[in-house]
Amino acid sequence: MGYQAQKVTIVGGGLVGALNACFLSKRGFDVHIHELRPDIRKQELVRGRSINLTLSTRGLEALKAVGLDEEMKQSGIPLHSRMIHDLDGTRRPISYGTKDQCIMSVDRKYLNGLLLTAAERNPSVNIHFEHKFVSCDFQAGTSIFKKPDGSKVTAKSDLIIGCDGAYSSVRHQIMKATRMDFQQAYIPHGYIELRIPPTADNKFAMEVNYLHIWPRNEFMMIALPNVQDNSFVLTLFMPFEIFEAKKTREQVLEFFNKTFPDSIELIGREEIVNTFLSLKPLPLVTVKCQPYHVGDNCVIMGDAAHAMVPFYGQGMNCGFEDCLVFDQFMGKFDNDFAKVLPEYSEYRNPDAKAMCELALYNYTEMRESVNSKFFLARKHFDNFLHWLMPSTWVPLYTSVSFSQMRYHKCIHNRAWQDKILTIVISGAGIACGAIMFARGFDYVQPHFNAALEQVSRMEWVGELFSKWK
Amino acid sequence: MGYQAQKVTIVGGGLVGALNACFLSKRGFDVHIHELRPDIRKQELVRGRSINLTLSTRGLEALKAVGLDEEMKQSGIPLHSRMIHDLDGTRRPISYGTKDQCIMSVDRKYLNGLLLTAAERNPSVNIHFEHKFVSCDFQAGTSIFKKPDGSKVTAKSDLIIGCDGAYSSVRHQIMKATRMDFQQAYIPHGYIELRIPPTADNKFAMEVNYLHIWPRNEFMMIALPNVQDNSFVLTLFMPFEIFEAKKTREQVLEFFNKTFPDSIELIGREEIVNTFLSLKPLPLVTVKCQPYHVGDNCVIMGDAAHAMVPFYGQGMNCGFEDCLVFDQFMGKFDNDFAKVLPEYSEYRNPDAKAMCELALYNYTEMRESVNSKFFLARKHFDNFLHWLMPSTWVPLYTSVSFSQMRYHKCIHNRAWQDKILTIVISGAGIACGAIMFARGFDYVQPHFNAALEQVSRMEWVGELFSKWK
Repeated sequence: MGYQAQKVTIVGGGLVGALNACFLSKRGFDVHIHELRPDIRKQELVRGRSINLTLSTRGLEALKAVGLDEEMKQSGIPLHSRMIHDLDGTRRPISYGTKDQCIMSVDRKYLNGLLLTAAERNPSVNIHFEHKFVSCDFQAGTSIFKKPDGSKVTAKSDLIIGCDGAYSSVRHQIMKATRMDFQQAYIPHGYIELRIPPTADNKFAMEVNYLHIWPRNEFMMIALPNVQDNSFVLTLFMPFEIFEAKKTREQVLEFFNKTFPDSIELIGREEIVNTFLSLKPLPLVTVKCQPYHVGDNCVIMGDAAHAMVPFYGQGMNCGFEDCLVFDQFMGKFDNDFAKVLPEYSEYRNPDAKAMCELALYNYTEMRESVNSKFFLARKHFDNFLHWLMPSTWVPLYTSVSFSQMRYHKCIHNRAWQDKILTIVISGAGIACGAIMFARGFDYVQPHFNAALEQVSRMEWVGELFSKWK
Repeated sequence: MGYQAQKVTIVGGGLVGALNACFLSKRGFDVHIHELRPDIRKQELVRGRSINLTLSTRGLEALKAVGLDEEMKQSGIPLHSRMIHDLDGTRRPISYGTKDQCIMSVDRKYLNGLLLTAAERNPSVNIHFEHKFVSCDFQAGTSIFKKPDGSKVTAKSDLIIGCDGAYSSVRHQIMKATRMDFQQAYIPHGYIELRIPPTADNKFAMEVNYLHIWPRNEFMMIALPNVQDNSFVLTLFMPFEIFEAKKTREQVLEFFNKTFPDSIELIGREEIVNTFLSLKPLPLVTVKCQPYHVGDNCVIMGDAAHAMVPFYGQGMNCGFEDCLVFDQFMGKFDNDFAKVLPEYSEYRNPDAKAMCELALYNYTEMRESVNSKFFLARKHFDNFLHWLMPSTWVPLYTSVSFSQMRYHKCIHNRAWQDKILTIVISGAGIACGAIMFARGFDYVQPHFNAALEQVSRMEWVGELFSKWK
């Protein structure tokens, strides 16, 4: 029965909804996307919502499965390192992985348009814009949408897929129909977006192949290059309280002078002041829930199932991987929704939850840890071990961004590495103690000091590593 | 400004809404309760929703503040002990606290009616039944209600209090307006209610002053006496899967024969079979959120703010204590909502969260731990120490049910006791070890065996204790 089902209703024509349509049309379904907003391809850019996204291995692998990876690679900008902007103006890169590993800065609007166009290429895909999801009836398999003129449309289908974002209305319907565990949590930080325009001769105003970070411990600013117009989009993440305390032109400029002095000329004083005083900072929410489905005819994916803070750049990648994983279960169970939905839901849940946790954790890393010598030493050390044992010692960032290791395994993997390191370091400590005991403290002291100095100059591991490559 | 506010809209005329009206009318506010359902005082009993509740110190203290405690005490049935029904038919009591400490079995409908009548006695309280809350506008201070004929009423007020239960619509409005952290989680167990009618001569069919428990580890049944008609209301808590597996008359009766044999004659075969096969078990949800307020004109209380599973009998007591605590903050800040709301929200949140945790924990205690010798030994030991040091060593159950200690302190208090006991027991262990080392194992063995035997007969502490009283 299940595998003869014909029609799929996708609620939401964003990134995940459009990619899902590509996957499902390939499987021969009659796919209808219903999107609240007008066609994004015909829209002017909307200020405020995040413009640039980073695409990494998981997202690319999903795009590859529907033949869109090459097209996307050509229109993105590869970023192989972070570029740290210290307070004194020093810029120092920290690479993401090996030389051939990079994430891609892509334009949300461009990618969404590409996916919609790709979906539409298949005649079995229909896209209905300005269709607002109202409610659905899981028993009857119907969903109701409202058009701009107030009239309502009822769509009957064999499967409803909610790809309608963090505040998903489909999820809300599922919560009414089934015992769904649900959690939403805000962080006390919000964000605003700023822009660094191209130079007078239309070039990028900073090094292009980097994700620029101004880590200031309590808050941070980042910048991603934008291939469309050679600009950078900056995002400032900061506690709401600090945003709210900046009320005048003078306060805003003083704050930038003190914390991001090297960015002022690049952005321009007016842009900074106007943005600060006119835009309300936007909130950052984590959403977790389970299960993702109800019965055999409704499932949620992407942000609707697992919204995360943006600090690992995995929101879109995780959503795209949802589509890929779902497609694999569709293959395994011959398109039988009654089997696919519960299996997908149970399999995907621990991974999506793990990624939500990792995203929260990475905020501390980006705004704080990158300022620490110990963090850098560990990074070099991890990279070194990874180079020695590429499949045994995979650093956390690498496993998340440059592999398809299940997200919850990435956490286990890192926990295992931490354990090993603790044992090794404790062993070294005990050895030191034993030597001290046997030969006296005075004998050990100079060696200990030398070792400490080495650790604080741990860059040598990185240098060594890059020379050996 | 705040303390001159006149009008308060209470959404929900259940237990917490009605008690809130009593408190607020005492403070001189113009109070309007809007309740979705018709007047409960004129309604027939609705099967399915929990009929009996247990009132303990916190609830009584709140009722006392509005002069309703004596009236309530007279219409409730005091329960001083649990009565454990073992599988072999043995019944054994386990007391809740000292001889003069008891919880009260009260009838939800009676109590709700009493509170509504008490509220109405004050001419400044108006109750609007069959008013369904639709939405509210926090900026304008207005709430919209829908009447049965479809017409809408708009109420303008200085404060909106949502007392509209676990699936609160007011909370839903707050979530749209502010960054509310929210969590709902179901346990894999559901419940159905059964009834033990009075005997032929209209007497209670079991010992009356007890909360009867049939603890069967994986699930349990409880019974509360009902003063209205000398019946008992039974609640069977069990995993949904087990409920769903019982599909025929034979399966249901076999299950009761095997697990609750002594209850069959009391309930009656037809009541058991009919209830089982006609009613769907109801879910049990925990809801936590924060903050409880938005701006200076809306706050949620009771289940709307903190729904909990019913296993500590604290849902209503916690909701009543909300009203009392809120009233204390109103006194402290001279009815200034702008100060009261955030202070109340921050103060009350850790306590409500702690109580939600305690309620979950107590399910294990009720269905499983009461079967364990160690649990009983600890209970006697705690009671003994409490008798020796009444204000220093307060057992967990006592602090929750018979004191007004802040809920989160009750948990800290118990953690502190566990720590002390661990130290004492470890100390005893080390002493034993030392003696064994000094005098040889053979010397210690008989003493050790004797001690073990004593522990397994720990009732002596209880007996000793009750003799000394």
